[in-house]
Amino acid sequence: MFNLIPREVRFFDSFEQQSQHMIRAAGLLQELVQNFADARAKAHAIKEVEHQGDQVTHEVVKRLNTTFITPIDREDIHALAKELDDVVDLVQSLSSRMLLYRVEKSAEDLVQMADILLQSTENVRKAIVELRQPEKYRRVLDHCIEVNRLENAGDTLLGLAIGKLFTGRPEPLEVIKWKEIYEVVEEAIDKCEDVANTIESILVKHG
Amino acid sequence: MFNLIPREVRFFDSFEQQSQHMIRAAGLLQELVQNFADARAKAHAIKEVEHQGDQVTHEVVKRLNTTFITPIDREDIHALAKELDDVVDLVQSLSSRMLLYRVEKSAEDLVQMADILLQSTENVRKAIVELRQPEKYRRVLDHCIEVNRLENAGDTLLGLAIGKLFTGRPEPLEVIKWKEIYEVVEEAIDKCEDVANTIESILVKHG
Amino acid sequence: MFNLIPREVRFFDSFEQQSQHMIRAAGLLQELVQNFADARAKAHAIKEVEHQGDQVTHEVVKRLNTTFITPIDREDIHALAKELDDVVDLVQSLSSRMLLYRVEKSAEDLVQMADILLQSTENVRKAIVELRQPEKYRRVLDHCIEVNRLENAGDTLLGLAIGKLFTGRPEPLEVIKWKEIYEVVEEAIDKCEDVANTIESILVKHG
Repeated sequence: MFNLIPREVRFFDSFEQQSQHMIRAAGLLQELVQNFADARAKAHAIKEVEHQGDQVTHEVVKRLNTTFITPIDREDIHALAKELDDVVDLVQSLSSRMLLYRVEKSAEDLVQMADILLQSTENVRKAIVELRQPEKYRRVLDHCIEVNRLENAGDTLLGLAIGKLFTGRPEPLEVIKWKEIYEVVEEAIDKCEDVANTIESILVKHG
Repeated sequence: MFNLIPREVRFFDSFEQQSQHMIRAAGLLQELVQNFADARAKAHAIKEVEHQGDQVTHEVVKRLNTTFITPIDREDIHALAKELDDVVDLVQSLSSRMLLYRVEKSAEDLVQMADILLQSTENVRKAIVELRQPEKYRRVLDHCIEVNRLENAGDTLLGLAIGKLFTGRPEPLEVIKWKEIYEVVEEAIDKCEDVANTIESILVKHG
Repeated sequence: MFNLIPREVRFFDSFEQQSQHMIRAAGLLQELVQNFADARAKAHAIKEVEHQGDQVTHEVVKRLNTTFITPIDREDIHALAKELDDVVDLVQSLSSRMLLYRVEKSAEDLVQMADILLQSTENVRKAIVELRQPEKYRRVLDHCIEVNRLENAGDTLLGLAIGKLFTGRPEPLEVIKWKEIYEVVEEAIDKCEDVANTIESILVKHG
């Protein structure tokens, strides 16, 4: 399998593809929570993105296992591929769970949390794109710091949302559904922070 | 501790033992969810299997830490031992939780999910047994693909089960209990898929 | 950055600092669950400890990434730092969740579980302090065994607490809150066991 493009370049290509899938999934989720019309079609589109993402992830892991010399540490390549994939999986499982729960009306807190998730994925993508160019490491780090800031903002929002959920005399079944929905968005935002932490590790080693 | 059996063979022996414990636990779970008579005795038997499994896992980790040259990558040995152990732990925690919840009647969806779990564990065991023989790698891969297929089937079933759970005017406490029960079975099936993915990684490296 | 103190000593210093943060957080949690007066101030103090802990964890990871030769395996250093940090994070997220849930009265089972957590953290710290001195490895192991025993005790207590929670005709919203509270304490105790297992791994390699 002789190939003139060096293997390292292809790892970065794959990470960029994965981060585009991640943004696409987060963008579709944002559309879904802003407007539940055509919820089924939107959830279906997220499922499609997840399938495509799976294939790229699979290719990265396979290439990693057959590549002797890698541009960045093997465990970091593996972690990045896995964490980017996890973000998409969480968005997909959230969207299908919302269909199951027959959620028909969004909540302002959910819209805001989905917005934070989308911003996080956009910052992750920028960090990944610039990771190819050592002269841009300062900017990569700035994107990572922004992802950390967004995670804190998401955590605060989650607290407010959960607080409201238990206020008054809520319907227990609604509490069960919405607590899960909010917590899965927060989990996806956390996973973006894991990606940012992995990228920071790579920077420190190569800085 | 001079020993004529090479160390690598003993790693494979341990994985086979672990996979037998896993099948035994999944089999007992299937009996339990088919018929809650003698639930306490069945849960107790699962607890026994878990104890035995812990010992094998502990031996693998100890041997790994004192073995310089391993037949397959150290991180893969560690991952396999841990993931096989996790399946048994999940089955054990599920069975004791069902006792706590005084579940006395099963649900058709639970029986089907436990069946998928049992099939997954059987495929994992076959893959592990044949992993010793490079000429059987094609069949190992087939078992892994089957485990992936079963995981998808389990995921679909979980969706149906959760959907039904929230339909009508369910008792919130029942929803809390059953949602957890279904999700833990799905988690055990997912963990079998993790084992299959680890095995696929090993195949790629040695293929 | 010339420094006469060898790098390895500083890794152990950091682990000791992390374990002190962990004990401090567990101690504050115990005070909180014994008496919900000044809950907000106690939760705030836990948040402070978490911030300080984050900084030490960050330093360890950074130093690890720029240190070529380490006193113990890199993956063990990384695991220890991460797991010690996770215990503090879990305690922090539990305390802020209890504020959100406006918990005003504790439960005997919660006090006992928080006590087990505190004992676990104290044993973890002793194990870490003595890990510097190979002649004390027997005692390190004893502390690890004690952490394992405490985890089993915590698991039994969790079962009893969950059992009581569902007994009678409980208020579903209370069940949702308290099930989560008990499970997060148990998760923190589990995480202490993970630390003990990592320490045992280090002992086996250096024993």
